[in-house]
Amino acid sequence: MFAGAQVSLYPMTDGFVDVIMGALSALDPWRDQLRIETDDISTLIVGPPEVLFPALRDLYAKAAATGEHVVLRATLSRGCPGEPDDPICQTNALANPEQPLAERQQEALSAIEAAPEKGQVADAQFSLYVMGAGDHMAEIMGCIDFLKHSGTFDRSKNFCTRLTGDAGPVFATLREAFCRFGPPQGHVTIDLTVSANSPSKR
Amino acid sequence: MFAGAQVSLYPMTDGFVDVIMGALSALDPWRDQLRIETDDISTLIVGPPEVLFPALRDLYAKAAATGEHVVLRATLSRGCPGEPDDPICQTNALANPEQPLAERQQEALSAIEAAPEKGQVADAQFSLYVMGAGDHMAEIMGCIDFLKHSGTFDRSKNFCTRLTGDAGPVFATLREAFCRFGPPQGHVTIDLTVSANSPSKR
Repeated sequence: MFAGAQVSLYPMTDGFVDVIMGALSALDPWRDQLRIETDDISTLIVGPPEVLFPALRDLYAKAAATGEHVVLRATLSRGCPGEPDDPICQTNALANPEQPLAERQQEALSAIEAAPEKGQVADAQFSLYVMGAGDHMAEIMGCIDFLKHSGTFDRSKNFCTRLTGDAGPVFATLREAFCRFGPPQGHVTIDLTVSANSPSKR
Repeated sequence: MFAGAQVSLYPMTDGFVDVIMGALSALDPWRDQLRIETDDISTLIVGPPEVLFPALRDLYAKAAATGEHVVLRATLSRGCPGEPDDPICQTNALANPEQPLAERQQEALSAIEAAPEKGQVADAQFSLYVMGAGDHMAEIMGCIDFLKHSGTFDRSKNFCTRLTGDAGPVFATLREAFCRFGPPQGHVTIDLTVSANSPSKR
């Protein structure tokens, strides 16, 4: 299995380089479980979902704590058939395909309840894509049903779903959506935007 | 059919509101063929691909012309089974499913040659997702083969492909990737990032 994300931070300030560089230290506790490569558009972070999501959460929370309007953007993927297996991605976080949708939804809700708060609000918007054989709309509809009970659900929009709340439960919700819906051997992706301190909200 | 995009502009400057507001006038020539709704995270633009891509191109080019480091982000979708048919999305731009992949690739290349230049460089990164029944990887591989001959291909990365060149042919390449691969009745999405004036490139 190969899993990871292409991640970018967009601080809407003249001091954008300092905000980005300052936030990167939030990845330090996770670095030995990830492979990280940067270019001028995005940073590739390769690793299992149970490390990837808390790492993104901490990166976001540190950037948001500057008080600047900052957006974290990520293209997340697991199981892409075009990518090679990688030992660093080994994971126990993916759902058992034999398990009924209702049970997976219940376990996902329990995982959110256990998530620690981070003290930063996260306004998130994301699309979940399930590729390949099988009833991908059934998995997506099952995921949307879970999201509506997650405590972080804000509203559905065209092409995506909005979440809001503390960064802890919001990124836990995203991790559960990514891991528990769609087959463990399937190709699942998330197109994610998380916004902090937007002046449009004030 | 329902088609459109959730679009955001991220100018990395204290004057981000002015850059965004100034760029919006680039949509004026297209507004009567689109439906546009804005919230604090993104702007929904609903309309057919042949209007959507030039509208995004003009929005990007106008923002890039400020000289600021600006990123345009879009989640594009066509044919999502969860969205209602909408007359404003009626399109003749989608490929004939009976047409062989090689012919579709050739027509896509001709369309890029016909694209006008806009005078702004676009460094783009995108993922194409083809959902539902059928061999989605064959369509994606066919699309990647087209991209490699497009004249705008930069390189493949994990989870995505990079394009670079004038905004005219780059957005034409994106339009062709969106329209000519995957079935016309299918659900196809693009996760798109386009970056202007990045200091990391200097």
